[in-house]
Amino acid sequence: MSESPEEKKIATRLFLEEDLGAGAKIGLDHARAHFLRSVLRLGQGALLGVFNGRDGEWLARIEGMGKGWTSLELLEQRRPQTPEPDLWLAFAPIKRGRIDFLAEKAAEIGASRLLPVITRFTDVSRVNTDRLAANAREAAEQCERLTVPEVAEPIKLSQLADNWPSERRLILCAEFGPARPLAEVLGELGPAPGPLGVLTGPEGGFAASELDALTQLPFVTPVSLGPRILRADTAALAALACCQAICGDWRERPEFR
Amino acid sequence: MSESPEEKKIATRLFLEEDLGAGAKIGLDHARAHFLRSVLRLGQGALLGVFNGRDGEWLARIEGMGKGWTSLELLEQRRPQTPEPDLWLAFAPIKRGRIDFLAEKAAEIGASRLLPVITRFTDVSRVNTDRLAANAREAAEQCERLTVPEVAEPIKLSQLADNWPSERRLILCAEFGPARPLAEVLGELGPAPGPLGVLTGPEGGFAASELDALTQLPFVTPVSLGPRILRADTAALAALACCQAICGDWRERPEFR
Repeated sequence: MSESPEEKKIATRLFLEEDLGAGAKIGLDHARAHFLRSVLRLGQGALLGVFNGRDGEWLARIEGMGKGWTSLELLEQRRPQTPEPDLWLAFAPIKRGRIDFLAEKAAEIGASRLLPVITRFTDVSRVNTDRLAANAREAAEQCERLTVPEVAEPIKLSQLADNWPSERRLILCAEFGPARPLAEVLGELGPAPGPLGVLTGPEGGFAASELDALTQLPFVTPVSLGPRILRADTAALAALACCQAICGDWRERPEFR
Repeated sequence: MSESPEEKKIATRLFLEEDLGAGAKIGLDHARAHFLRSVLRLGQGALLGVFNGRDGEWLARIEGMGKGWTSLELLEQRRPQTPEPDLWLAFAPIKRGRIDFLAEKAAEIGASRLLPVITRFTDVSRVNTDRLAANAREAAEQCERLTVPEVAEPIKLSQLADNWPSERRLILCAEFGPARPLAEVLGELGPAPGPLGVLTGPEGGFAASELDALTQLPFVTPVSLGPRILRADTAALAALACCQAICGDWRERPEFR
């Protein structure tokens, strides 16, 4: 792990699609180039962190920059790629503002995949998955994450149930009906839970028939989040945070901090 | 517990200051009267839930209503007052939008008191505690809570440390330095943790000197929230959710649901 004085000068982190390696030169797209030059006011020689979800985090220097273009030179790897919890969030989409916030927070907390799911009482008809992906990417860039969560296209709840991988335990946040306390269920899964998913409903809640059908599925465990009725976004974030704290990667302080 | 058909028709819940009891008649202030009549479009005879943090939740009927005034008649108690976790959130204030959201979520998750704390890197100079209290009250009304969190006036971190009640364990969310995993600390506190508090820093984090000084205090336990750098609001909500799930009132499904 490099502890060079340069480390402190890094202005920002960028997620890139390209392969990363020593000496590689990478041209940024117009939007990124504009962001570095006109928003962050960076110039030639400035240092960045870059990552692609595969090759760890690299130190990069702005090699050249003009109107609408920037080229980076990769210097050295700052952190190796490490395994991350395999934690999906399936959620009924909610109105703008709250859904943007949810994508940001889920990325910080460490969800690996965001799946919008249309349930009976979902009152949002269109989901801008490009905007959700952008929110998730920006949050990943800011929170020192080495990956960006994938954002899936919306599907119906019945499709989710039919196509859910049976080895992935699905934690169903159920606001009524039989359910065990969240922390009890997660405590039993323990520190190596395998692939996990969390499912949360819309502001109007799941229909009783939806909860009944989900609860029959062998891979579903309904959980209770306590005596208050949480908003959809609160429930999703709370459940993800508990997953990470009890079964996920919040159990250890990383070496680099 | 009443299971009358009236129960389903309740349009909203209101927090009131007045004492609640069978047959009591309560006049609403202008803002509340306007809200019921012009926003919710309720009329004479409509049913509400009301609570005051002391007398449980009561079924109330709109007895009379005119321009700018509404009077309620209390019918029967729907839920008795029950003890709630004694969980404070002390937090460095953050910018508008995010701080409103934080007050809402903290109320839903079940914090009993919100304390804005000015730290060295806090870049918000004024905190509108009236607005925070209104957000917390509205969230409490919507989430079926029987109390409303108190919102304290901002104080400096040194004042917080000097005046903190020594029997109240303070969970310090520390983004660097020695700290144990959050779930491990909360697991040791167990299901009857006594009075608790959570302390989170500003977007810029605590200063190293602040973390050092806090960590020396006998009532402080520094905790880690994992490998990513969480935003201030994310850290606060995640820590509160874990407190409630592991040591708080998320361990049981209430009888009324």
